[in-house]
Amino acid sequence: METFGKRYHPPGTPPGTLARHGEGDTTRVCLLEYSSEQCTETLAPTPEQCRAAMQNDRADWLDVTGVNDPAAIRELGETFGLHPLALEDVLNSGQRPKIDFHAKHAFLILNLPHLIDDEIVLEQVSLFVGDGHLLSFCSGDGAAFEPVRQRLRQGFGRIRSRGVDYLLYALVDVIIDSAFPLLETLGEQIEDLEDQVLENPDKSILTTLHLLKRDLLLLRRALWPQREVISRLIQHDAELVDETMRPYFSDCYDHAVQVIDLIETYREMLSGMLDIYLSSLSNRMNDIMRVLTVIATLFIPLTFIVGVYGMNFVNMPELRWRYGYFIVWGIMAVLAIAMLMAFKLRKWL
Amino acid sequence: METFGKRYHPPGTPPGTLARHGEGDTTRVCLLEYSSEQCTETLAPTPEQCRAAMQNDRADWLDVTGVNDPAAIRELGETFGLHPLALEDVLNSGQRPKIDFHAKHAFLILNLPHLIDDEIVLEQVSLFVGDGHLLSFCSGDGAAFEPVRQRLRQGFGRIRSRGVDYLLYALVDVIIDSAFPLLETLGEQIEDLEDQVLENPDKSILTTLHLLKRDLLLLRRALWPQREVISRLIQHDAELVDETMRPYFSDCYDHAVQVIDLIETYREMLSGMLDIYLSSLSNRMNDIMRVLTVIATLFIPLTFIVGVYGMNFVNMPELRWRYGYFIVWGIMAVLAIAMLMAFKLRKWL
Amino acid sequence: METFGKRYHPPGTPPGTLARHGEGDTTRVCLLEYSSEQCTETLAPTPEQCRAAMQNDRADWLDVTGVNDPAAIRELGETFGLHPLALEDVLNSGQRPKIDFHAKHAFLILNLPHLIDDEIVLEQVSLFVGDGHLLSFCSGDGAAFEPVRQRLRQGFGRIRSRGVDYLLYALVDVIIDSAFPLLETLGEQIEDLEDQVLENPDKSILTTLHLLKRDLLLLRRALWPQREVISRLIQHDAELVDETMRPYFSDCYDHAVQVIDLIETYREMLSGMLDIYLSSLSNRMNDIMRVLTVIATLFIPLTFIVGVYGMNFVNMPELRWRYGYFIVWGIMAVLAIAMLMAFKLRKWL
Amino acid sequence: METFGKRYHPPGTPPGTLARHGEGDTTRVCLLEYSSEQCTETLAPTPEQCRAAMQNDRADWLDVTGVNDPAAIRELGETFGLHPLALEDVLNSGQRPKIDFHAKHAFLILNLPHLIDDEIVLEQVSLFVGDGHLLSFCSGDGAAFEPVRQRLRQGFGRIRSRGVDYLLYALVDVIIDSAFPLLETLGEQIEDLEDQVLENPDKSILTTLHLLKRDLLLLRRALWPQREVISRLIQHDAELVDETMRPYFSDCYDHAVQVIDLIETYREMLSGMLDIYLSSLSNRMNDIMRVLTVIATLFIPLTFIVGVYGMNFVNMPELRWRYGYFIVWGIMAVLAIAMLMAFKLRKWL
Amino acid sequence: METFGKRYHPPGTPPGTLARHGEGDTTRVCLLEYSSEQCTETLAPTPEQCRAAMQNDRADWLDVTGVNDPAAIRELGETFGLHPLALEDVLNSGQRPKIDFHAKHAFLILNLPHLIDDEIVLEQVSLFVGDGHLLSFCSGDGAAFEPVRQRLRQGFGRIRSRGVDYLLYALVDVIIDSAFPLLETLGEQIEDLEDQVLENPDKSILTTLHLLKRDLLLLRRALWPQREVISRLIQHDAELVDETMRPYFSDCYDHAVQVIDLIETYREMLSGMLDIYLSSLSNRMNDIMRVLTVIATLFIPLTFIVGVYGMNFVNMPELRWRYGYFIVWGIMAVLAIAMLMAFKLRKWL
Repeated sequence: METFGKRYHPPGTPPGTLARHGEGDTTRVCLLEYSSEQCTETLAPTPEQCRAAMQNDRADWLDVTGVNDPAAIRELGETFGLHPLALEDVLNSGQRPKIDFHAKHAFLILNLPHLIDDEIVLEQVSLFVGDGHLLSFCSGDGAAFEPVRQRLRQGFGRIRSRGVDYLLYALVDVIIDSAFPLLETLGEQIEDLEDQVLENPDKSILTTLHLLKRDLLLLRRALWPQREVISRLIQHDAELVDETMRPYFSDCYDHAVQVIDLIETYREMLSGMLDIYLSSLSNRMNDIMRVLTVIATLFIPLTFIVGVYGMNFVNMPELRWRYGYFIVWGIMAVLAIAMLMAFKLRKWL
Repeated sequence: METFGKRYHPPGTPPGTLARHGEGDTTRVCLLEYSSEQCTETLAPTPEQCRAAMQNDRADWLDVTGVNDPAAIRELGETFGLHPLALEDVLNSGQRPKIDFHAKHAFLILNLPHLIDDEIVLEQVSLFVGDGHLLSFCSGDGAAFEPVRQRLRQGFGRIRSRGVDYLLYALVDVIIDSAFPLLETLGEQIEDLEDQVLENPDKSILTTLHLLKRDLLLLRRALWPQREVISRLIQHDAELVDETMRPYFSDCYDHAVQVIDLIETYREMLSGMLDIYLSSLSNRMNDIMRVLTVIATLFIPLTFIVGVYGMNFVNMPELRWRYGYFIVWGIMAVLAIAMLMAFKLRKWL
Repeated sequence: METFGKRYHPPGTPPGTLARHGEGDTTRVCLLEYSSEQCTETLAPTPEQCRAAMQNDRADWLDVTGVNDPAAIRELGETFGLHPLALEDVLNSGQRPKIDFHAKHAFLILNLPHLIDDEIVLEQVSLFVGDGHLLSFCSGDGAAFEPVRQRLRQGFGRIRSRGVDYLLYALVDVIIDSAFPLLETLGEQIEDLEDQVLENPDKSILTTLHLLKRDLLLLRRALWPQREVISRLIQHDAELVDETMRPYFSDCYDHAVQVIDLIETYREMLSGMLDIYLSSLSNRMNDIMRVLTVIATLFIPLTFIVGVYGMNFVNMPELRWRYGYFIVWGIMAVLAIAMLMAFKLRKWL
Repeated sequence: METFGKRYHPPGTPPGTLARHGEGDTTRVCLLEYSSEQCTETLAPTPEQCRAAMQNDRADWLDVTGVNDPAAIRELGETFGLHPLALEDVLNSGQRPKIDFHAKHAFLILNLPHLIDDEIVLEQVSLFVGDGHLLSFCSGDGAAFEPVRQRLRQGFGRIRSRGVDYLLYALVDVIIDSAFPLLETLGEQIEDLEDQVLENPDKSILTTLHLLKRDLLLLRRALWPQREVISRLIQHDAELVDETMRPYFSDCYDHAVQVIDLIETYREMLSGMLDIYLSSLSNRMNDIMRVLTVIATLFIPLTFIVGVYGMNFVNMPELRWRYGYFIVWGIMAVLAIAMLMAFKLRKWL
Repeated sequence: METFGKRYHPPGTPPGTLARHGEGDTTRVCLLEYSSEQCTETLAPTPEQCRAAMQNDRADWLDVTGVNDPAAIRELGETFGLHPLALEDVLNSGQRPKIDFHAKHAFLILNLPHLIDDEIVLEQVSLFVGDGHLLSFCSGDGAAFEPVRQRLRQGFGRIRSRGVDYLLYALVDVIIDSAFPLLETLGEQIEDLEDQVLENPDKSILTTLHLLKRDLLLLRRALWPQREVISRLIQHDAELVDETMRPYFSDCYDHAVQVIDLIETYREMLSGMLDIYLSSLSNRMNDIMRVLTVIATLFIPLTFIVGVYGMNFVNMPELRWRYGYFIVWGIMAVLAIAMLMAFKLRKWL
């Protein structure tokens, strides 16, 4: 994950300026109109088609993926009457999740996390919900919404017989729940790391641990505000969310809280593991030093003794003793045994 | 305890989908109808029996254990008019404790912790409380509720003469209080560990300490929200809880707070113990190094001296001195004593 | 102090069950009736005497110490109309401080800390305050209340001319203030420890530091909720506390806050001291290693040199040089001086 | 950044005393009057010009940079009727960001951070907003406001057609957003440091890490209250901010929150990196000690053996064995191989 | 600063008991009556003079310093109708800052910090503000109030033309602002320490760091509640503080917040510095060990080799080789160079 991860204009740029940032997925616009009877899909609709869709009775979902084309976004903004500051946020991905209530729309920004090649990637999803229509702008390829599109096309479940607030719920539910497979994967990595720390702590752990911690930190930053967003969505006493939809959004809220809960738990587990790792480093150092100390304190005095009788003084009576050599061996053996017993006593052996 | 510990559907699954997760205890449904006079028990009641029970005057407890059969759950849900999202939560164990107020029921999820073979296991208990009936779904074998069943059967205490809100209290009380024997056991383990850390810190402590810390972390995650659940149950100004029941639930609330309090205290004690353990590792390292340093600095210079007189130079006057050998011994003794005194001064001996 | 420190019934026990827990001080019941004119004391009053006392005009204090007799407690509970759950809390000591407002009584639980043989002991004091009477149950010997009893007997100060709310204040004041002598003692121990850590850190510090930290942790758990209890007592807009008594309870509240403040400050000081202790361990290790390194790096090369000239090769020209031996000494002296200067440069000497 | 960073009067100085603090940029006063048609600029306007500007219909911006001249400030204060305590804050830079609502003006203090030669510098910007006029005092050179001045001069965007609340928004937006390029630079430095910590941790890291941490700490202190300031500006139900301006200030608020979010995330990343650095120091120490221990435990026993046969006892039978020398070599080889295998077993090689 | 720092009565003492605690500055009472025209000062006024002063139109300041005389305090208390518990707090210095609203007075306790001989000393200032009169009790010599006395005597600024609320502001302002010079001094000490930690970390740093940390901890405890006191003073909707005075007290509040802000920032900087210090200790240990390891692993094998040829076996062919000695030198040189290169490779040289 990127540390800074935010796109912004140079300070002083007039508000509502729309600019292209680098390359990305191609912008794909799709208009889904649905009622309990049918569901029609129009790829790349013209402004007239959009306006017509807004006026008929059917619920409309304008599904935009790969947000990368300022001109197209501006045109859509004018067609649907979106606030220029909101459009700026749609293009400048890396925004903090938030909800704003404009005159005609509620505007939500959420982060959809998923794993690509073991790397956590955040797609920014911007949602405008107005009277009978919903616009979604997804900075990535929007593949996560495919099950919702299928349910609309096939009329599976309640989705086609209810309004755009149910569609909003379906999308928010997908976004929040997409954190669970990710967190399950992270949870498994953490459990593996834990086994390794307790049984066989080596240097590679440190990097893994740091990267996991960092990913969780950035993930928390990205997902923490979503709880607040959904809470404000529920509390907002407008006609936006129907009374019967409340248990559904309340379920989303519970899931958002569980996600944060899990992230916090994982972070604390990783902190605990770093402590254990540091302690085991100290333990290992103690082991190494103990071996060195035992060997050195055992042999250094003995080496001194044999050094003494390696001196070349002319007058060294012991050298001429008959059993001098053997006596020295005896003394050394006694000394070594005494020291070994002292080590035993200190539990160094 | 499991780190992730949550069951979930793939993101995008329609709400209210009920699915079986792995194997578990067999689902056992039992209907207890009771009034102050009598208490009848029906094992595996038919939907008709359930509907009949709801219409008569007696209080009903539908006691379901080993929640593992989506079909049975769906049927019960239809019979009692339960919300599909709530049923989803009943089957997907590992939910966060919560309380939801639906049109006809209050819906509570609580965690019942107990020890099985020194391992902390959480049973998810889901409770629906409506007018004159209570449904409990227990993901485990429900053995913890046996005393309540006995009190109902034998008419012991006030339980049979009061409504389902008293039964709700009795069950919630069991669930909350089941943390106390667990925490007492953990408390004893922590005190043992503390003695060991202060008196004889060895490596095995580290693993024990880490596992205790981790269990407390996961336990806190599971039990923390229960405080809030009971608090909301008390504050809810509905006909759900009778005014005279308030002191009882307030007592449950106090116990839920005490549980959290104890968990937090234990966690801080374990953190303190890790600090002490790390310090004692450093202390032990200091001891080892001190011994090595004393032995090495004592003998290295002496070994140098005897090395000098082991040289084979033809012209080394000292070697031919009469008392050369003894003078060297004298010098070495003086040196050794001086060094021992220096060590004494530095408190290394 | 005990880690778990709580008495509880097995989960599932019917509410209001009163049971004896181990041995303790003998239960002593004393009824004090007082008015501005006089004060009469009745030891072990009969239920009739209690009821008579409640009906007359005088203020009554039923002073129970050594709460250990379920039967006597149950009888008192019936005489004064106390709630069975409250009586359960009176007997199960180790409760969290709390205040409950029942129909006829306010029920307070507070912890009275004092030092017995350098060990912190908590007495649980349970207070019932009703119209014109106050019941106090003290799990210990109640010696702390002796000054209040004396003031009642001797009519000293305002105590006899005011109602039971003033008596309640007097008792709460004693309970809160009894933490000050304790904290002063702990404060002195902490200052002693601080001097030791800065001047002469040895191993015994670690245990003292850990035990102080642990005591403060448990003390905080026991005293923290008292602040809230008194705050709720003041805010409660009932006839319980007279308007003129408010400054008095407000004073108690300030003291309760000061107690928590001091405990937190002490805890932070001890944490700081552990950091300093760990740093001084590292410093000491550095010192030890520096000595070892200086001695070893000084003599190891010299010993090598003398080893060279201890070899027995037939053809070793230097051995036969006239001043070979003295040249070697010279070289070694130069080497030693060079190394000492290098150590000096690195500030190792 | 400066640690204390605050200018203050000696305690006891009468309120509203204006004094010069050291040297700084020269004070430059410029009056910009604008309407949708035109924009006129007057450098160093006289009090009469100021009063005339306040009375006409056009919006006025009195743009003061390099606040360093108490006399000029006092004169402006009198002309525009500013509160003496507010003027004191304008001159005493290093204030905490705040908003005060006076009778005729809202008074804001904000901090404009930017990088000068890799050093973070804070300019204090004081804003007075009244009916149709805005005064800005910038403690630095005010270069950051140049784009706003340009937009006014050129009539670019909406700025000239709207009131001073839009101008206020434009200035606040510049101030808040000027943190982003700074944070992007810091983010890059942190990522570089992270790579270094994980791959090649050396001593210089420590200083860089400390200085980054310290800068972030001081930056947080300077920017944290700005969130609150803008929140209060939005909530203030006065005529100050027009209803249509609310989304604009709400956008500023989001940015202020993002700035704090990023600072906190960076701080946690740096803390994590210090832990990793400390662990890698321990790892490196372990490596060093392992090499020492392997070499020392391998050769010390061997050196002892060769020492034995260097003794000069007259009666040492082995010396005269034919293959004594070779046997000793054999024994030493076996011993060395055994020890190397033991090291292998302990994973020290 | 004192750790416990609180004077208290033994638990159970009747409320309102006034007692002398040790020695201190002599009590000095001075009555200042002032109006816009004049200011008269009466040293040690009689109760009659005090009562007369209270009845006339002029504002009165009863300025008491060196609070050490229970009898005088009690007399003043009776004259001005002060609450006995408040008087107890006046005498028992070491109170927590607080504000109480009594029937006729507002009662404030604040802490005035200053440096005496590099030691932080807290003077407790107790203020009673009533209708047209203000009483200040200062536990120290009250020198900090001298500028206010001068402004009153000389009629400098607005002070004499406004009521006692302006006087209250003047005193509170002095008390709060007296923390700034102190914090500036501490800030300089911290910056010096920081330079030392980064450039030349030695042992003395540890003690300085600990004492600074401890002083900041105790200072925070003493000053933290002052923020709350001033906030409550502003919010109190009584006639106590005139509407026009609100910006003045709001300024005091800002300063109180800045003081806490600075203390917290300093504390975090010191924590960061301890981490850096610990890291640099580890770094230094690594340096020492590296030198030891290089020297030891270089010479230990060489010493073994020369030991081999110091053996006295009769049959050692190499000894008799013509260039045996020089070959050994060659082997040793090759070995030494190889090891030095290995060290170079590991960056140990």
